[in-house]
Amino acid sequence: MSDGAAGKPGSLLIIGGSEDREDARHILERFVTLCGGPAGRIAVLTAASKIGELVWQDYQRAFAQLGAHHCVPIHIESRAAANHPAMVAAIDSADGIFMTGGDQKRLLSLVGGTAVAQALHAALARGACVAGTSAGASAMSDAMLTYGRARLKPVKGTVGMGKGLGFLHGVIIDQHFSQRRRLSRLLTVVAQNRSLIGIGIDEDTALLIGAGEGIEIIGAGTVTVVDGRSMVTDIDSIDPRAVPEMLDVRLHILPAGRSHRIAGGAQPGALSDFLHLATRIVQP
Amino acid sequence: MSDGAAGKPGSLLIIGGSEDREDARHILERFVTLCGGPAGRIAVLTAASKIGELVWQDYQRAFAQLGAHHCVPIHIESRAAANHPAMVAAIDSADGIFMTGGDQKRLLSLVGGTAVAQALHAALARGACVAGTSAGASAMSDAMLTYGRARLKPVKGTVGMGKGLGFLHGVIIDQHFSQRRRLSRLLTVVAQNRSLIGIGIDEDTALLIGAGEGIEIIGAGTVTVVDGRSMVTDIDSIDPRAVPEMLDVRLHILPAGRSHRIAGGAQPGALSDFLHLATRIVQP
Repeated sequence: MSDGAAGKPGSLLIIGGSEDREDARHILERFVTLCGGPAGRIAVLTAASKIGELVWQDYQRAFAQLGAHHCVPIHIESRAAANHPAMVAAIDSADGIFMTGGDQKRLLSLVGGTAVAQALHAALARGACVAGTSAGASAMSDAMLTYGRARLKPVKGTVGMGKGLGFLHGVIIDQHFSQRRRLSRLLTVVAQNRSLIGIGIDEDTALLIGAGEGIEIIGAGTVTVVDGRSMVTDIDSIDPRAVPEMLDVRLHILPAGRSHRIAGGAQPGALSDFLHLATRIVQP
Repeated sequence: MSDGAAGKPGSLLIIGGSEDREDARHILERFVTLCGGPAGRIAVLTAASKIGELVWQDYQRAFAQLGAHHCVPIHIESRAAANHPAMVAAIDSADGIFMTGGDQKRLLSLVGGTAVAQALHAALARGACVAGTSAGASAMSDAMLTYGRARLKPVKGTVGMGKGLGFLHGVIIDQHFSQRRRLSRLLTVVAQNRSLIGIGIDEDTALLIGAGEGIEIIGAGTVTVVDGRSMVTDIDSIDPRAVPEMLDVRLHILPAGRSHRIAGGAQPGALSDFLHLATRIVQP
């Protein structure tokens, strides 16, 4: 089990892609710790990727170099596989599940609503760590970003959304955030969906969420939070492809190395709201 | 005189650089209107540029194509020239002064604190329009951005500031904003200078400020306002070159075509604060 007490909900490790797998490996090392250390059992879910076996070998090597040898791949190529008891058993017996990159639409079309998805929720509920990088990060929230190229400014009607795995509600996650210059894309999402808080995670950077406890930022970059819940915008009255006015968006820049706990925190109100939302890991 | 009543303070037309001078010329056309129409007298101040004569010819041609033929260049190559009565007279008799691009440090080192700078303030006070593009835009505020390359995230100690012409206090202006991806640079400025509101203006886009009245955004892009006055940050306690945490930054995206008046506006509080500050054109 995880480093939490039995029965305590687990943690989400949401990684912005391109995490270091060769050198310092701070994020993967933390994942191993969250799985209970080198003896922890790790399942690597490759369903987002078309080259799952290659991706698995890469992570197997990285985890082995961190001393974690109890790793198994979960390759899923069909929805039938995602409902197969062997796949569910592999998740049920894991202390941590790592969802690789690839394409979040592929991941959801294979796994969404299946026994494997249920097993992931159950794993979180029993205290396991669920990690995801890149597509695996985007898939964690209920509302999932599916397309939209990076633009210089927000543009109405240029982002697509779908249904994610739903560990978190009320947020939407983007990855490779600073490197692919995706702030305008996230502003577009938030302008079009006022009830969602946008979370942009840089490469080699992770947002660690302890259910009901708090957050920590790990790695090399920053996590950007875009909160438009009290924004005033004219997006409903402008044409598609036009640029919306957005007044009073709340922005938080959270660099690696910082952490915020719900209890006893003296955060500004807007961050406190975000903390409560982000640490409310949802049971299906 | 301008299209305002005599004795009424004038307007600032703050252009983010690369304004259209060949085709629609919306921004330059508006400048001509603010100068009272084609009969208005325009002075083109080229001091920011090392190639003032070429820059002047470009604007002379553009203004002529808009029907404005009463244009004169003000080339300033020394501080002595910036104190010469002929230069002052050229400004005193203008309905509008257009400050070209180049380097805002060059502009200020030639003109800052001289009789020409005083004449620009006097022109605003008597109702003229003062326009500036690129370096000419940056130079308008009291605190002026002088260097800092665009980065993926805010980084402590990576921006330089100097003293500008001081038409506006409490703000700092950046230009070529979206195109050169300067949001992180502006966030750095705001993190280091909590009392300043950052204004980032896109290319071919202008922020028109009517003293005491309101603002209008003209052209093709957006104006981005970064308000960190109620932000919580750890920038004072981190090392130089580290990334500051920035909580609760207020962000406004103002696209071209929108305007906000102080009187009777139903803006959110954070924008209303900005409007009051931005329309308070300062007399020296």
